[in-house]
Amino acid sequence: MSVESTVIEMAKAARAAAGELSRCASVKKNEALEAIAQKLTQRAPEIQSENAKDVEQARENGLPDAMIDRLTITDATLSAMADGLRDVAGLEDPVGSTEGTWIRPNGLAVSRMRIPLGVIGIVYESRPNVTIDTAGLCIKSGNAVILRGGSESLRSNQALAAAVAEGLAEAGLPENAVQLVPVRDREAVHALLQQEEFVDLIIPRGGEGLIRFVVDHSRIPVLKHYKGVCHVYVDAAMDTDMAGEICFNAKVQRPGVCNAMETLLVHREAAAGFLPEMARRFSEAGVELRGCEQTRQIVADALPATEEDWYAEFLDLNLAVKIVDSMDAAMAHIAQYGSKHTEAIVTADFQRAHRFLREVDSSVVLVNASTRFNDGGQLGLGAEMGISTSKLHAFGPMGIRELTTTKFVVLGEGQIRS
Amino acid sequence: MSVESTVIEMAKAARAAAGELSRCASVKKNEALEAIAQKLTQRAPEIQSENAKDVEQARENGLPDAMIDRLTITDATLSAMADGLRDVAGLEDPVGSTEGTWIRPNGLAVSRMRIPLGVIGIVYESRPNVTIDTAGLCIKSGNAVILRGGSESLRSNQALAAAVAEGLAEAGLPENAVQLVPVRDREAVHALLQQEEFVDLIIPRGGEGLIRFVVDHSRIPVLKHYKGVCHVYVDAAMDTDMAGEICFNAKVQRPGVCNAMETLLVHREAAAGFLPEMARRFSEAGVELRGCEQTRQIVADALPATEEDWYAEFLDLNLAVKIVDSMDAAMAHIAQYGSKHTEAIVTADFQRAHRFLREVDSSVVLVNASTRFNDGGQLGLGAEMGISTSKLHAFGPMGIRELTTTKFVVLGEGQIRS
Repeated sequence: MSVESTVIEMAKAARAAAGELSRCASVKKNEALEAIAQKLTQRAPEIQSENAKDVEQARENGLPDAMIDRLTITDATLSAMADGLRDVAGLEDPVGSTEGTWIRPNGLAVSRMRIPLGVIGIVYESRPNVTIDTAGLCIKSGNAVILRGGSESLRSNQALAAAVAEGLAEAGLPENAVQLVPVRDREAVHALLQQEEFVDLIIPRGGEGLIRFVVDHSRIPVLKHYKGVCHVYVDAAMDTDMAGEICFNAKVQRPGVCNAMETLLVHREAAAGFLPEMARRFSEAGVELRGCEQTRQIVADALPATEEDWYAEFLDLNLAVKIVDSMDAAMAHIAQYGSKHTEAIVTADFQRAHRFLREVDSSVVLVNASTRFNDGGQLGLGAEMGISTSKLHAFGPMGIRELTTTKFVVLGEGQIRS
Repeated sequence: MSVESTVIEMAKAARAAAGELSRCASVKKNEALEAIAQKLTQRAPEIQSENAKDVEQARENGLPDAMIDRLTITDATLSAMADGLRDVAGLEDPVGSTEGTWIRPNGLAVSRMRIPLGVIGIVYESRPNVTIDTAGLCIKSGNAVILRGGSESLRSNQALAAAVAEGLAEAGLPENAVQLVPVRDREAVHALLQQEEFVDLIIPRGGEGLIRFVVDHSRIPVLKHYKGVCHVYVDAAMDTDMAGEICFNAKVQRPGVCNAMETLLVHREAAAGFLPEMARRFSEAGVELRGCEQTRQIVADALPATEEDWYAEFLDLNLAVKIVDSMDAAMAHIAQYGSKHTEAIVTADFQRAHRFLREVDSSVVLVNASTRFNDGGQLGLGAEMGISTSKLHAFGPMGIRELTTTKFVVLGEGQIRS
């Protein structure tokens, strides 16, 4: 069978499974999640031996250590996956709930009922834990899923998918609710992106290159973010210690992730009192600063920032720093160079806090807190499927609610329209 | 200037206007809607004289009477447009409202705030009232809009757009918040559909051909429905009079619209008692029936239904009729041939009503009420922008809430992530 026909058969099977899954009671879905969690432990030797082959191959192919790290399934990885499934089982099931009921003058009772989207395709890169995390979120939200992981982790993903299939079967759920594309060929991704009849949503998870490929080739709606160029704006009126803690946390605590700060904007009245000590802390932590001219007059060893630096997602210990004349200038900078991901203001001024919250056009806007809180778990959504910077359907971290939609349900007693 | 550069300039201007409009207080937007309503009356002679030129041209081009009817702006059309704007002014403004606030264990206060989508492109056919209706909905929801009406109504639309611009200016809102593409060339539609950097959403309103063209060429997300193949299922246990009233209303009251019934499904136990009288009423109203074999044994003069008839959106006094063995068979028929638009059940049975509501995968599902209620006004959303049968972002009638999205706003006191 050709790659394309393999993918088409999978998509059809997913559509059929989606119908069945959408009608499943919560308790059955939770049983499946628990069964899968147990299979991960029972099948640990097999999963780890398949994973070892992927790791060996990756070493032979000269993959960087950081990627091999992400690829490796340790005992701790497995138990984190199982814990994640149990956390998802504990989340409230959105499917079938209604959001209020309103009564029309003619007596019709109208409400919105949450329903699954149908079939979701996930295209991702090396980390095999995505296989289990996304399978869990899709099962809980009543969606069938087609997984297409990185080619370097195919054996690991197949072993994990076998555990998922076994768990689904044990709970009496359709096995085709979770399917893994079994071929390495990139043609498979392309074929998946053409199945708009059978697949309702594509979520790419990985680097900007993967995401651009998916967006450029998909006939199916895509939820994604390209990059997180996150800003912290330190206002004229603020608590210097608080600003220091927030900026340090936003940049240094985990620089390689999308919600880390990439550009620091400082009000000119605050700059002289705030930047020298901040620069010293950053320097101690190994952060390289790239400043505007005014910044370099205060922090002599900052490199000169280029135009590209304002657009950059460094994902590393680099930080662009700009001194601005006003909050309006800071917001204009964010509108021009930002990625609509995460923006924070540190201020003691009520009116500016209020304006910043309302006017900054980003998926998460914070006052006096670190950008690192843009995360489904941190914001209280439970586990997440990534962060969307598209405005349609979902904007920000995507939890299980974002994997559902609503239909209108209408109860009548014979009403007709006149 | 080429058509493409004209459209690009408009899209950039719309993006700039959208920022300003998104920060406008409700009271200003409502002032603009009232001012536009007044301009429609003041400028009536000019609007109607431009419209007369379009109508004359349409007659010369041999357009059918029905289209010329839809194109013609009477005094009644103008006052309906003005009333529509005042109705929209009376709707609650979703922008800036938050949906609950939850407190995280670390004290962060998190909520979702409604925000406009940004810039919306509307591509529509002949009816000039769409120009005013959609301008009103976009202004109220804080979105800038680019309108691309039918080429046969260009002069009318330009006269209407001039009234809109005057009203916006009078209320101090940016004139570029509402722009009309001033060229007849279809190249303009194509150019608009490529402006993904400046336009956030496309809504096509018109026939299936227009909508397919838009979907096939757009790089921007599209909310649309292709067609409404709406079903009424008459269950075994039901009130025959109620079923008769609902079916008659769903088919006959306005057969040319998307929420009219196209296929009637009848449980075999109800068929002999229900269909003969129903067929007589339909026949008196000029409805042509196309039945399955079993139907034709009961209603002798029904034509034989072909496979295509089950997929058909007749938009006229035709009705496909099928006798089914069970509600499951009815739901399977709907899943196979339906368009996810509107489905109704007539039943006296609680459990089947409950199952039909939950399991039928359509944007509006009704128990004991006519399909004709799938309409933003009828369901209590206020005015609408059409009906979406896409599941992402909006599913069902789209009111002003569906022209917005949410961002997360987070209030802290210096929280950092550990």
